[in-house]
Amino acid sequence: MAEPVTIGVGLIGSGVVGGGVAEVLLTRRDLIRQRAEVDLDLLLVADKERERALATGIAPDRITDDYRSVVSDPRISIVVELIGGVNLAYDVVSAALRAGKHVVTANKALLAERGGDLFALARTNNLCLSFEASVAGGIPLLLSLREGLIANRLSSLLGIVNGTCNYILSEMTAKGISFADSLKEAQNLGFAEADPSTDIDGKDSGHKLALLSALAFDTWIDFPSLHIEGIRNIQDSDIKITSFLGYTLKLLAVARTDPPPPPISQGINQELPGPGRLFLSVHPSLLRKSNPMASVSGSLNAVETNGDVVMESMFYGRGAGRYPTASAVVSDIAAIAKNLRYGGARGWFPPASNSYQIAPMEDYRTRYYLRFNVHDRSGVLGILATILGRHHVSIAAMHQFEDDPNDNLASVCLSTHLAREGDITQAIAEITRMDFLAGEPALIRIED
Amino acid sequence: MAEPVTIGVGLIGSGVVGGGVAEVLLTRRDLIRQRAEVDLDLLLVADKERERALATGIAPDRITDDYRSVVSDPRISIVVELIGGVNLAYDVVSAALRAGKHVVTANKALLAERGGDLFALARTNNLCLSFEASVAGGIPLLLSLREGLIANRLSSLLGIVNGTCNYILSEMTAKGISFADSLKEAQNLGFAEADPSTDIDGKDSGHKLALLSALAFDTWIDFPSLHIEGIRNIQDSDIKITSFLGYTLKLLAVARTDPPPPPISQGINQELPGPGRLFLSVHPSLLRKSNPMASVSGSLNAVETNGDVVMESMFYGRGAGRYPTASAVVSDIAAIAKNLRYGGARGWFPPASNSYQIAPMEDYRTRYYLRFNVHDRSGVLGILATILGRHHVSIAAMHQFEDDPNDNLASVCLSTHLAREGDITQAIAEITRMDFLAGEPALIRIED
Repeated sequence: MAEPVTIGVGLIGSGVVGGGVAEVLLTRRDLIRQRAEVDLDLLLVADKERERALATGIAPDRITDDYRSVVSDPRISIVVELIGGVNLAYDVVSAALRAGKHVVTANKALLAERGGDLFALARTNNLCLSFEASVAGGIPLLLSLREGLIANRLSSLLGIVNGTCNYILSEMTAKGISFADSLKEAQNLGFAEADPSTDIDGKDSGHKLALLSALAFDTWIDFPSLHIEGIRNIQDSDIKITSFLGYTLKLLAVARTDPPPPPISQGINQELPGPGRLFLSVHPSLLRKSNPMASVSGSLNAVETNGDVVMESMFYGRGAGRYPTASAVVSDIAAIAKNLRYGGARGWFPPASNSYQIAPMEDYRTRYYLRFNVHDRSGVLGILATILGRHHVSIAAMHQFEDDPNDNLASVCLSTHLAREGDITQAIAEITRMDFLAGEPALIRIED
Repeated sequence: MAEPVTIGVGLIGSGVVGGGVAEVLLTRRDLIRQRAEVDLDLLLVADKERERALATGIAPDRITDDYRSVVSDPRISIVVELIGGVNLAYDVVSAALRAGKHVVTANKALLAERGGDLFALARTNNLCLSFEASVAGGIPLLLSLREGLIANRLSSLLGIVNGTCNYILSEMTAKGISFADSLKEAQNLGFAEADPSTDIDGKDSGHKLALLSALAFDTWIDFPSLHIEGIRNIQDSDIKITSFLGYTLKLLAVARTDPPPPPISQGINQELPGPGRLFLSVHPSLLRKSNPMASVSGSLNAVETNGDVVMESMFYGRGAGRYPTASAVVSDIAAIAKNLRYGGARGWFPPASNSYQIAPMEDYRTRYYLRFNVHDRSGVLGILATILGRHHVSIAAMHQFEDDPNDNLASVCLSTHLAREGDITQAIAEITRMDFLAGEPALIRIED
């Protein structure tokens, strides 16, 4: 066995994940030396709260309260940013790259919103900017997409990438409780933050989808333009009814190419037909209960892909948490170190030009679940069906539930055959103008 | 973007998988150039059947019928062995390594049975010997274990790694048919070979487990010593009864450390307690139906791991087939090429010394399903329970089914609490001597 080469590592932020990374680096040093023939030496940990850094087991003389000491330390080759947030993290990462350090981060918000500049800086300086832990936590997903599936054009990617939302929806499903009660429970158990909006409004899933788009579809997007719907308006009755129809409700990050690639049975001896489009969206979605993704419950994550060579794949595991996330961060550090030992490290960069144009959601085609709360007069069902039909929306199943016999209120729930989203929204707009409607209609996409 | 560097590739064998690799290399050349900044040039394809090579779309002047032309071609840096079998493949791979070529193969039998020599040769010559496609086909499993989970000691790995067996068992379960009928159906559909013994007797799963042991547990084993049980003796009645008990039957490749690591809730700030042992075994196994692995049906593969940092992970996808396997082979080629471009390639090698000793199966501890066919006399149940109890085997559930009222034959089926396998086999040996027994008892391990 070759003599291991020592690589200096600096850590900025020793909170939940950063502290876990320090612990893993300190306790797994021998294991990684044995496996990768590199010796990862955690030389410096920067944290404003010294006690927090000390608790990781790092030697007291390796703690600083100034991130600049880490960035400027000539012994350090790899800087790990784990302070979170966007603005200060941007300063830290860009300072590290300008100082010639490879960077590892778990910060999806930073990369999705300001990654363009940072990757450009990394490319200019021929440095790695690695971010395995930023999507789906401990699951080696980015590695698998980037290297394992390198020969594939994906036609779709569906991801449960936010554990908070998945926990809330799983509890609503299992216990029949409301969104508000489930959120409260998640907050009590530490699965949701005091201000949960980044999670429950889908923004966190959106950050992850933006990065997945770049990695899996060679398409870097302008984050604010991403279509995002959260789970705040999901009603327990929709979960009950769709469960009765055979579906499980999940918040999904969805990417689908348009047109879809030809089936593999026709062989693969052809190039992609012309420049394609890509639908990117975060939205509540219904999955048939037999779909393996439907049984991913609680705070777990899973991502299902379809490649034109490899066909279906699924990656499943812990999407968050101190140690699972640290596992992914340390895998990035070890990979860079190994490359440094055996030649030069070469990171991943966003594509020089995008492979796909982003398609507007009005062109999206899928099956839909719709719910209309109505004043139950005679003829209402007929009018609903007529309006939908006029907009080319064909009904697959329809159920009317009596909500309140005294008030004469009913819920009309239906699933459609494949339909164009623009047609659906026009039909809904027309239905919304009807005086028999009582409250906002609900639309949930069926992704199966 | 940097100018791509051209890397010469030679392919030996253009059958099902080899032909797929040629097609993928030819049609995905631009895609890989764009993603990895390397240009993979398939310079030569060796096949005894020229027509087969021609069908892949390779230029006629790039076909040879002599593998030595590929191995000795100075323009070729990476040789891909896809002829299968052990003896000739050994000659091909060792010749390529001796000629200074990096090698990619999908040949699990070759590596599990004679990999020791080949990896030593690769290490001596500082070459890569890559084999992503050899286990779980298109799933980027080895990459994930080797790099993604590098910071983890695994405590267990359970794999459905043979699509033929999984197809046969899935059909037996879904249709209630016998093993023989299900095998015949699998053969008619091309999911099983004319001589299916390597698959159904578990040897193929064993080859894969041997490689997984080296990658995931740093333990290289002597293949003939591996404990392997196939599915030939599985009776449809056992599938029906265990299904009634809430289980699904799968052929699993199983690796478990002994003792298991302490729970992560105690933190990870400790080294492994002393030198551990490793159970390695291929055997029919019962999984609770709610286990995600239980719903992996048909010819699909899945591998579930438990790491002491990352906790549970699952990898799922196509374990075989022309294109899924080619996807994995090409990912290996691209990874080597990228390393060649940016420094030096450094492959994976078996551990210099093993991390675990292999534990004998008599020390295995799990829950068991047992079936005894008996002549139904009074007192039989009591004797069975007494013998089991004397051997420290505690019964969790017991069911007696009337097989044939005329002959007075019954099946006594039971599941045990956690028990030591040595105790179970002693109890079974004692029960087998009883004159009320009608036929061989069945033992199936519950892995959950």
